[in-house]
Amino acid sequence: MPHKQQHIVDRLQEKIKNKRNPCIVGLDPVITLMPTYIVKNPSGYKNPLKAVSDTIKTFNKLIIDCIADIVPCVKPQMAFYEQYGSYGLEAFEETVQYAKRNDLIVIEDAKRGDISTTATAYANGHLGEVDIYSNISLPSLDVDLVTVNPYLGSDSILPFAQVCEKYGKGIFVLVKTSNPSSYELQNRVVDSNISIYEIVANFVNKIGKKYIGKKGYSAIGAVVGATYPEEARKLRSLMPNTIFLVPGYGSQGGKAEDVVPCFNKDGYGAIVSASRSILYAYRDTQYKNRFKPSEFYLAAREAAINMRDSVVNTLQKNGVLAGW
Amino acid sequence: MPHKQQHIVDRLQEKIKNKRNPCIVGLDPVITLMPTYIVKNPSGYKNPLKAVSDTIKTFNKLIIDCIADIVPCVKPQMAFYEQYGSYGLEAFEETVQYAKRNDLIVIEDAKRGDISTTATAYANGHLGEVDIYSNISLPSLDVDLVTVNPYLGSDSILPFAQVCEKYGKGIFVLVKTSNPSSYELQNRVVDSNISIYEIVANFVNKIGKKYIGKKGYSAIGAVVGATYPEEARKLRSLMPNTIFLVPGYGSQGGKAEDVVPCFNKDGYGAIVSASRSILYAYRDTQYKNRFKPSEFYLAAREAAINMRDSVVNTLQKNGVLAGW
Repeated sequence: MPHKQQHIVDRLQEKIKNKRNPCIVGLDPVITLMPTYIVKNPSGYKNPLKAVSDTIKTFNKLIIDCIADIVPCVKPQMAFYEQYGSYGLEAFEETVQYAKRNDLIVIEDAKRGDISTTATAYANGHLGEVDIYSNISLPSLDVDLVTVNPYLGSDSILPFAQVCEKYGKGIFVLVKTSNPSSYELQNRVVDSNISIYEIVANFVNKIGKKYIGKKGYSAIGAVVGATYPEEARKLRSLMPNTIFLVPGYGSQGGKAEDVVPCFNKDGYGAIVSASRSILYAYRDTQYKNRFKPSEFYLAAREAAINMRDSVVNTLQKNGVLAGW
Repeated sequence: MPHKQQHIVDRLQEKIKNKRNPCIVGLDPVITLMPTYIVKNPSGYKNPLKAVSDTIKTFNKLIIDCIADIVPCVKPQMAFYEQYGSYGLEAFEETVQYAKRNDLIVIEDAKRGDISTTATAYANGHLGEVDIYSNISLPSLDVDLVTVNPYLGSDSILPFAQVCEKYGKGIFVLVKTSNPSSYELQNRVVDSNISIYEIVANFVNKIGKKYIGKKGYSAIGAVVGATYPEEARKLRSLMPNTIFLVPGYGSQGGKAEDVVPCFNKDGYGAIVSASRSILYAYRDTQYKNRFKPSEFYLAAREAAINMRDSVVNTLQKNGVLAGW
């Protein structure tokens, strides 16, 4: 049976308002960037992948403990868990549950994309419930929102939208990604006047209309990179009811000014994500004189606060009213 | 340390030749389609997801035992494992190892797509080796080839290509997919004369040149749906050294005639995949009078033989020389 909850983006906005922060932290565990003291030696383990799984759990819990009162959500990047197979997914599952217990919304960055029954399997596994036995289904990965790739067309998105409606969950469809070569397909212009990313935006806007919450935003969101403010401006007007997940801040070069066009005048409409610049701040010249490697989570907390202050101040300066 | 092996597509062609069969079986475990006797009752399990995991292992092993002498590869669709989280991945891992022990090549249908270090994490996890501890790395999911989504552009493909070169593995890039709405983005025409799928094809052809094996085919392959023979003809000439993974045969409506344009005159250049029409053949009117549900794997074997014969006969009739 579906456990229908409050509309996911209404919940998200409530948290943004309460914490006065539209910035989120990506949970991308990379053992070679972690302080060495925290990385488990596999020699004490039957399976070395279990050592990594335990390292990731410990690392993520310390990070979550230190940022849960500051940020509305966390965004685990599935690749960094999945690469360790079933042991990695076990760490992912425990991270998701721990974040939820700490009252955080969980956005899984998975960029899944497939068709018909396969898309439904992904949607049910990540957001809904999976078949266990005749007439028994249960939640599995059970995140709140997941990122989705549109290359296969609308029949790769609609199964996700249906599962979102049934279980009160949401998705972010890749529209304009933050990476340098995103222009190769996404910015190609067809019929002399519309680009591929605008076609995807129009589609997101259209199907999103069916899933709008009380606060005016849809459960069908869009990924729009912080590194392309020009495109963001255009996309903001093409998708007025769409919440943008904005990656590329920090390590990828996106600055506070660059994310302003992603917001609506109400101060909502976007969440800005940073991963490495927060998690591994203790390695950064700005922090490393003041924090020991064993205090990495305190450096992460300070970096998360600095990011929040920088983004919020810039939004206010630019007349984006912090309704929150 | 990388375990560099024989070029993956050379290995694949050897198997196609030895078995005189370019058809492969997709391993898409769906418990509601399996005979009820094989589906484990979760009441005897501490975790109900473990029951499903055990069901999938049993089902896949029976299928593999029955087709290993007929087909060159199996193609597990990750969605049907991943939906069950870490327990599902455990079943995936055991399936991959079992298929390899039975001398089958494993193509993972995962359609992953991400950028830079995230793409590298996916590539290392699925095809290469993952970091465990300082100076220790080990293979993880360790499949032979994986499908990749190009929406993010070349910087989402190149990290996979590098891992393929290092570990003797391969990928199939989605070019023209088999689903009805694949035209929405893939067939859009830019600059008045080239479609998005052709842009992807040109890119696949170009980077693939670096990774060509002794038999003339690249480790960088392409997904080209059986349901679009017109496009396949065009793509065959745009990508002469590329092996096509051709889904959509059977359940999705692709027929033996439709896959002919995917092959080169040497009889190589494509592998044709079917999943449900083989795995669940025992439910089909063509087989269900002769096979009991408990003989589902025998029905699957016969369906796999029928598919092979149908495709091979059609190729021969159409002057595609069975070099194998």
